[in-house]
Amino acid sequence: MASGLVFPVCWFLLLSSVCGGRRLQEEESTALTLESVRKFLTREEDSIVFSLIERAKYPRNAPVYDPSYLGSATKFHNLSLVELFVRETEAVQAKAGRYQNPVEIPFFPKDTTLALVPPYNFPNELHAAAASVNVSNNIWRKYLDEWLPQITSQGDDGNYAPTAAADLVCLQALSRRIHYGRYVAEAKYRGAPQDYNTAIRAKDRDALMKLLTFKSQEDAVKTRVEEKAKVFGQDVTLGNRVDNSSDTTNYKVDPVVVYGLYGDWVIPMTKMVEVEYLLRRLD
Amino acid sequence: MASGLVFPVCWFLLLSSVCGGRRLQEEESTALTLESVRKFLTREEDSIVFSLIERAKYPRNAPVYDPSYLGSATKFHNLSLVELFVRETEAVQAKAGRYQNPVEIPFFPKDTTLALVPPYNFPNELHAAAASVNVSNNIWRKYLDEWLPQITSQGDDGNYAPTAAADLVCLQALSRRIHYGRYVAEAKYRGAPQDYNTAIRAKDRDALMKLLTFKSQEDAVKTRVEEKAKVFGQDVTLGNRVDNSSDTTNYKVDPVVVYGLYGDWVIPMTKMVEVEYLLRRLD
Repeated sequence: MASGLVFPVCWFLLLSSVCGGRRLQEEESTALTLESVRKFLTREEDSIVFSLIERAKYPRNAPVYDPSYLGSATKFHNLSLVELFVRETEAVQAKAGRYQNPVEIPFFPKDTTLALVPPYNFPNELHAAAASVNVSNNIWRKYLDEWLPQITSQGDDGNYAPTAAADLVCLQALSRRIHYGRYVAEAKYRGAPQDYNTAIRAKDRDALMKLLTFKSQEDAVKTRVEEKAKVFGQDVTLGNRVDNSSDTTNYKVDPVVVYGLYGDWVIPMTKMVEVEYLLRRLD
Repeated sequence: MASGLVFPVCWFLLLSSVCGGRRLQEEESTALTLESVRKFLTREEDSIVFSLIERAKYPRNAPVYDPSYLGSATKFHNLSLVELFVRETEAVQAKAGRYQNPVEIPFFPKDTTLALVPPYNFPNELHAAAASVNVSNNIWRKYLDEWLPQITSQGDDGNYAPTAAADLVCLQALSRRIHYGRYVAEAKYRGAPQDYNTAIRAKDRDALMKLLTFKSQEDAVKTRVEEKAKVFGQDVTLGNRVDNSSDTTNYKVDPVVVYGLYGDWVIPMTKMVEVEYLLRRLD
């Protein structure tokens, strides 16, 4: 408790000494291109698959998500351990500057606070009026209600803090990927604004969705993350390599489940972000 | 700041409502065997390799480790951002009960606080007088001073909070693995106490180290983690599989470096923990 009470105050004391921008970093402006966007998304797939495998190391651990677990005689009535954990951890990460980078979006922005590190000039490639597109609530609910039951086994091993920490890593990776739809949309728009302007002005979501949909590319992504779940989720023993058998029981998360999660949620939610971003692109 | 100040207080309010042990979990006592120990250590290798790959996603980001970065006009004179970050995050995880499980050891125990979740009856297989063996300071320094420069590229991308968060995941995985030496030693001792008692009574570290050393097994572990670094750190593209070329530049962390880190630090430090544990095994 000492630290919890003392640190926030002391971090605040630090503020004056570090916020003079003494060390404003210079970074080359990275041009946003379809190629750079694709590279980012491909690398994020690895992070997402790693995070799911690491979460699957622990069983379901239902008390983490049970709003009654922490009792109800407090102002946190109906808050789960995972929510309290994420709120507090995001507050720490905000102080260390995580959300200065527009690529990162907190789940509980009201609990995040002023960064205590000097400002860093992250490249901001987004159109200001559209940058705030946010589907965090949706990601949070889908992850807890639909993803988790598919990637974890029944059971309770009491490792609730490591479980919640693993959940946060999953949630952050998923959120970063899905909200990167803003950058995807920006890159596509810059490449051919004339293709989008009519649909944007008509607020025609269906037309935008059509313009953004490339089924063969989506299929390739789904197949690749399934492959990554096989490669990263296998038991590596000396001399063995990934086999191509259809038996998925030997992997740490079921590759077919990861394929489905990407196809049913990650890709559609990313496209939802792209559409919402484009609808504000001319504001 | 609101959360930082408000949450610790409110977590405290929760205490009374949840610490009645309302939900004391029952878990089958898992018998500690050499087989169960080996299984744990093998799975931890995956976690360690994943964590190193995820840390290597970001460049060195030197300000995270620079004690002068946060200024010196505070009580945190000479504390780095990574240290402040780990202290605060460990405090949050302690409240969620992380360190109730003797497998987990904090780097800054003075900053961890009473768990706010009900007690969970984790199996405690360790000999009480020997369980407190702790090499956290050593791990902390080795990781920051020697490992990090080898797994990260030069550079600064401003992502200091994600960098510190990735460091913490590495540190926790390494600490869990190395401190699991206590369980390794306990399993070995239980299997043949007569082999160890003489050396323990004579406080003969060298003799104990000899008893605990199996070079061929250590070589197999090093080779396997090198292989894991190749398998998990490759760029998975459709149709490709791990190649066996000696060119390691295509992997996200250099497999040869991971081999060396395990051989030079992880295995020796685990054995150091085993020896120190055994020296207290008859206390």
